[in-house]
Amino acid sequence: MIILMQFGATQAQIDAVCDAIRQHQVEPLVLPGEDRLAIGIPAALSAEQKDHIEASLNALDGVSKITHTSRPYKLASLEFHRAKTTVDVKGVKFGPGYFVIIGGPCSIESYEQFSKSARLVKAAGAKVLRGGAFKPRTSPYSFQGLAEEGLKIMKQVGEETGLVTISEVMSGDMVSLVAQYVDILQIGARSMQNFPLLIEAAKSGKPIFLKRSPSATIDEFLLAAEYLLNYGNKNVILCERGIVPLDRSYTRNTLDLASVPVLKEHTHLPVVVDPSHGTGVSKYVAPMAKAAMMAGADGLMIEMHPDPAAALSDGSQSLTPEQFSCLMDDLRTLSGYCGLKM
Amino acid sequence: MIILMQFGATQAQIDAVCDAIRQHQVEPLVLPGEDRLAIGIPAALSAEQKDHIEASLNALDGVSKITHTSRPYKLASLEFHRAKTTVDVKGVKFGPGYFVIIGGPCSIESYEQFSKSARLVKAAGAKVLRGGAFKPRTSPYSFQGLAEEGLKIMKQVGEETGLVTISEVMSGDMVSLVAQYVDILQIGARSMQNFPLLIEAAKSGKPIFLKRSPSATIDEFLLAAEYLLNYGNKNVILCERGIVPLDRSYTRNTLDLASVPVLKEHTHLPVVVDPSHGTGVSKYVAPMAKAAMMAGADGLMIEMHPDPAAALSDGSQSLTPEQFSCLMDDLRTLSGYCGLKM
Amino acid sequence: MIILMQFGATQAQIDAVCDAIRQHQVEPLVLPGEDRLAIGIPAALSAEQKDHIEASLNALDGVSKITHTSRPYKLASLEFHRAKTTVDVKGVKFGPGYFVIIGGPCSIESYEQFSKSARLVKAAGAKVLRGGAFKPRTSPYSFQGLAEEGLKIMKQVGEETGLVTISEVMSGDMVSLVAQYVDILQIGARSMQNFPLLIEAAKSGKPIFLKRSPSATIDEFLLAAEYLLNYGNKNVILCERGIVPLDRSYTRNTLDLASVPVLKEHTHLPVVVDPSHGTGVSKYVAPMAKAAMMAGADGLMIEMHPDPAAALSDGSQSLTPEQFSCLMDDLRTLSGYCGLKM
Amino acid sequence: MIILMQFGATQAQIDAVCDAIRQHQVEPLVLPGEDRLAIGIPAALSAEQKDHIEASLNALDGVSKITHTSRPYKLASLEFHRAKTTVDVKGVKFGPGYFVIIGGPCSIESYEQFSKSARLVKAAGAKVLRGGAFKPRTSPYSFQGLAEEGLKIMKQVGEETGLVTISEVMSGDMVSLVAQYVDILQIGARSMQNFPLLIEAAKSGKPIFLKRSPSATIDEFLLAAEYLLNYGNKNVILCERGIVPLDRSYTRNTLDLASVPVLKEHTHLPVVVDPSHGTGVSKYVAPMAKAAMMAGADGLMIEMHPDPAAALSDGSQSLTPEQFSCLMDDLRTLSGYCGLKM
Repeated sequence: MIILMQFGATQAQIDAVCDAIRQHQVEPLVLPGEDRLAIGIPAALSAEQKDHIEASLNALDGVSKITHTSRPYKLASLEFHRAKTTVDVKGVKFGPGYFVIIGGPCSIESYEQFSKSARLVKAAGAKVLRGGAFKPRTSPYSFQGLAEEGLKIMKQVGEETGLVTISEVMSGDMVSLVAQYVDILQIGARSMQNFPLLIEAAKSGKPIFLKRSPSATIDEFLLAAEYLLNYGNKNVILCERGIVPLDRSYTRNTLDLASVPVLKEHTHLPVVVDPSHGTGVSKYVAPMAKAAMMAGADGLMIEMHPDPAAALSDGSQSLTPEQFSCLMDDLRTLSGYCGLKM
Repeated sequence: MIILMQFGATQAQIDAVCDAIRQHQVEPLVLPGEDRLAIGIPAALSAEQKDHIEASLNALDGVSKITHTSRPYKLASLEFHRAKTTVDVKGVKFGPGYFVIIGGPCSIESYEQFSKSARLVKAAGAKVLRGGAFKPRTSPYSFQGLAEEGLKIMKQVGEETGLVTISEVMSGDMVSLVAQYVDILQIGARSMQNFPLLIEAAKSGKPIFLKRSPSATIDEFLLAAEYLLNYGNKNVILCERGIVPLDRSYTRNTLDLASVPVLKEHTHLPVVVDPSHGTGVSKYVAPMAKAAMMAGADGLMIEMHPDPAAALSDGSQSLTPEQFSCLMDDLRTLSGYCGLKM
Repeated sequence: MIILMQFGATQAQIDAVCDAIRQHQVEPLVLPGEDRLAIGIPAALSAEQKDHIEASLNALDGVSKITHTSRPYKLASLEFHRAKTTVDVKGVKFGPGYFVIIGGPCSIESYEQFSKSARLVKAAGAKVLRGGAFKPRTSPYSFQGLAEEGLKIMKQVGEETGLVTISEVMSGDMVSLVAQYVDILQIGARSMQNFPLLIEAAKSGKPIFLKRSPSATIDEFLLAAEYLLNYGNKNVILCERGIVPLDRSYTRNTLDLASVPVLKEHTHLPVVVDPSHGTGVSKYVAPMAKAAMMAGADGLMIEMHPDPAAALSDGSQSLTPEQFSCLMDDLRTLSGYCGLKM
Repeated sequence: MIILMQFGATQAQIDAVCDAIRQHQVEPLVLPGEDRLAIGIPAALSAEQKDHIEASLNALDGVSKITHTSRPYKLASLEFHRAKTTVDVKGVKFGPGYFVIIGGPCSIESYEQFSKSARLVKAAGAKVLRGGAFKPRTSPYSFQGLAEEGLKIMKQVGEETGLVTISEVMSGDMVSLVAQYVDILQIGARSMQNFPLLIEAAKSGKPIFLKRSPSATIDEFLLAAEYLLNYGNKNVILCERGIVPLDRSYTRNTLDLASVPVLKEHTHLPVVVDPSHGTGVSKYVAPMAKAAMMAGADGLMIEMHPDPAAALSDGSQSLTPEQFSCLMDDLRTLSGYCGLKM
């Protein structure tokens, strides 16, 4: 933490800042400068200490700017945890050297629809099956999912096909229910900062697939992961799925692909990209999927529906089985180039 | 819903679009144009019908652009509900002709701190007392609130001072607990699209204070309110508290004050502004509070702490008692000018 | 400038950073911390030195994060120039204690239209007359303005009414032409970082009205002003006119009103708000105009057209003469409350 | 253009809207709906007509929402110009089947630095040489370029190496000067809506490299290209270089890679990506460069400096010669996979 004093700050103002810092049991370090003086706090501070110190200094005269010099996450940080994490779900590995495809429809609509989706997904070479049972929908008038009935279908279809399954859980009190039926718990983008949910999901012991909120900075995203890690769950997979768009006329979100190398540099956790939500338009999914692999992602989540035009949700961004299969072929070729196992 | 066909679309393509529309039991209307033809769907469509039609048309050749012509909310809409709503909480009125101040600390830290805050808030002329017991915090290492102990303090202090109370509820399974102790349930910005929470909060029958998510469009915000109204709760107060910032160097969020006249034009629900979170900096609270009144807000939520420098959370954006009292005086003068009762 | 070393950085890495800094003729200061070490550079650095040092350190191992602790502007800074600037244009004062209204149509369309506008603007009490002669238009097919013919009309109407005049100049080579005819040169939002234009405009000696680019941070905005000041022109008026919107469905831009108190705290230059472009919708102009006064602005720029429905540009955001006059009355009442002279 | 009437709009209000439309010499089409009526305008409208009609209707009672159904650009549109454009500059082709690398330093600093850069760029296999002579810099205190001296160096080095050259022109009155020395005129991101510059650049007859403004929507970007096309210049290359960032802590901009497939769908012009400015961090350039190729780009602009730590500008985002050469090797391998000629 660095406190920049205003140009012309008096000695009394400087002393007041130093005194205020000392009241928090840390020792300030005065850094003379040519036109302005800075005061550093060389101690490791807790988030609470930072809050308090910042609040107490904001009230003082002569303070120009307070800058935080350190990153706020620790457990999620590659700096403090030098080995990259591999999340292994029933033998499917998210981590260095692998590239995992998660495919399936937005929603589980019926046994027939989901079973057919699963067989198509598997035939195309994907290892993980997605499908929503509890659907967070912007409008109360949209299809809200089959609820537990959907989870039962997922469990049955997962067993029949041998695919690993993933579905979203929307609240802490439903974690134990969803965890009974699925292999990976998804925390949706709208729930990234639903802290009671994060805590319950972490405690369940299930691998967690954490989607980035469209408004989240990298630090906020990694602090949400920090909740999961802090509650003892090490099997955390991050997912970039698009941030608030500059232009909603052509895509639903702005897929922030550069977040992949940024995250890979700063965290040990695997990073998956969802180009279906990231663009919201089926024809942009394939180019962005391939781009995500080149950007360094550890896998993809892609929506595929046996008949997108009849989908009960997100039909506009779902691939047809043919498009999905064709994309999988392309990705397999590319994965060879990248030295990744699919 | 209007489907614009591409320049040079063939009759067969036009027919295919019309047929796809008819499969959804609605009749298309062909609108010839000079260089491009459009196809309108003049029926009132449900959100699901729109999703299906859009998905089925996206797959067809010759389609250039699909445009939704109507607003997605109904119950929240001023167009369909011509009388402005007044939310009356124990005689405190949010609605036309009134201007309500909600004041208090970010967190309930102790009986002493909160009781003192309440007396200062009341003395300055505010009618509603805020304070967090369950705190959503970006970092797991920050102060998380006193939980139920905090709610008990709030209830006691509310009774002692006669102030109406408001506190945040973070998950659906805690609605009944929080509803026991407080007068108004706050749904925080991070929870605006926590749909299980919205549904439980609505069902509680308590007045709801719904904060806008930093990434929410006006339509998304009003659709969250639509959930509450659709589950039978008519006492909904909207709160603008800042959207994703362009520039994080000087403020924490961008306070979208123009959302006030926009919302007042399109919804019958009262609109409150939170300049404390909206800016994140105590010295910007007073100018933005006065600006909010002029923009047409029905009230303000303002953080005040007896000793901001000792606050366990959000000290940087909290007013001192003196600043709060001085702002209240200014607002009272202005409210006379605006013909509002404070 | 503070360089945070990675957790576990070696002494050799630390030494390499210090050596790299010394090659730029400044002395590093090592700040030991509990878990990570930081290295400060206490000297005042030029922008170029900062660029070089940052680039050289980015290439070194063990560096976690580089943070700039100082603000990049000097001449525009209130910290270095303690007296607030009053820009006096033929007796019309932009600065402390005053509130100036700039009114008029988007474009100068004819002598009749502009003369009528001017008389209405003056009758309502405004002191400055706006009107575009050279119009920057997003589409090449939109009305581009009357060019020099428009400037002649402006000059004549200015003389006839005694109003101070302002018009936009779009390129450096046209500064001398525009400066012949108008009292204040406007630099439009799209030109905020048109550096050849900034330099020519500064050299003209005319007062400059500098609009914020919709993508500009506060620092970028003040650095554009810094260009003007650095080329010797002290008569700079800043104008907030809306930043990139989160939601384009209801407003054209997001009016960043909190930038007013932010700017007033950090610069000595006067700040004007343009709620017409800031919202793009005539019915939101009046509430946002009043809000801007309360936020601390030194004036307003408002579009008014004798007949908005017949305007050749920006009719949707222009007030009618009646709306303008009514708003002026409201502002006069409010200005009394604020102790401002209109 | 579709005008949605409010729920409960009266016949008189509907008639007034139709009359207002007819005054613009176009015939409205009334579309009955279940709960709200819409009025369509099936004629092709000029941008001016749209402005006028919208302004006149905004003033009328009973109007709920006005929606534009068509895209605003024509000459840049793939719909109206079905053949993809190939821009051929001295035999270097930007267009289908090719992938062009533009490399070189941010600024031309000296003959030695630039000549060395050019030889390295060429040895690595790039075909086009970049270098800034007139530099738009956010701060007036940063290095502003060598001006004409730099252009002379560029011309000489271009001739010596046989590389095609590109440099930025910042204002209309300098187009003829810059055009004398370089093969491709670059319009920088800050100048995308510098309309006098666009017009002069178009008229020069030189190929134009148009960078997207960080705040530009796709429509605004294509309308800037429309200016160039409308003034008779068909050799336009578009460049995505990052939009306003959500998070400035880790990257300088948000590289909007999905804009590549969006642009490829809607325009016939070639699209190049600049991952150096798009991220601002040298270590993210390679992954984003490869991702851009997979997203469908027609080429890349990449900053390389013989010694980034000594660069006079943008050292932090410049690759070293070794990094550049290594990336070129990777891209060549990938281009084989994509069937592109490099």
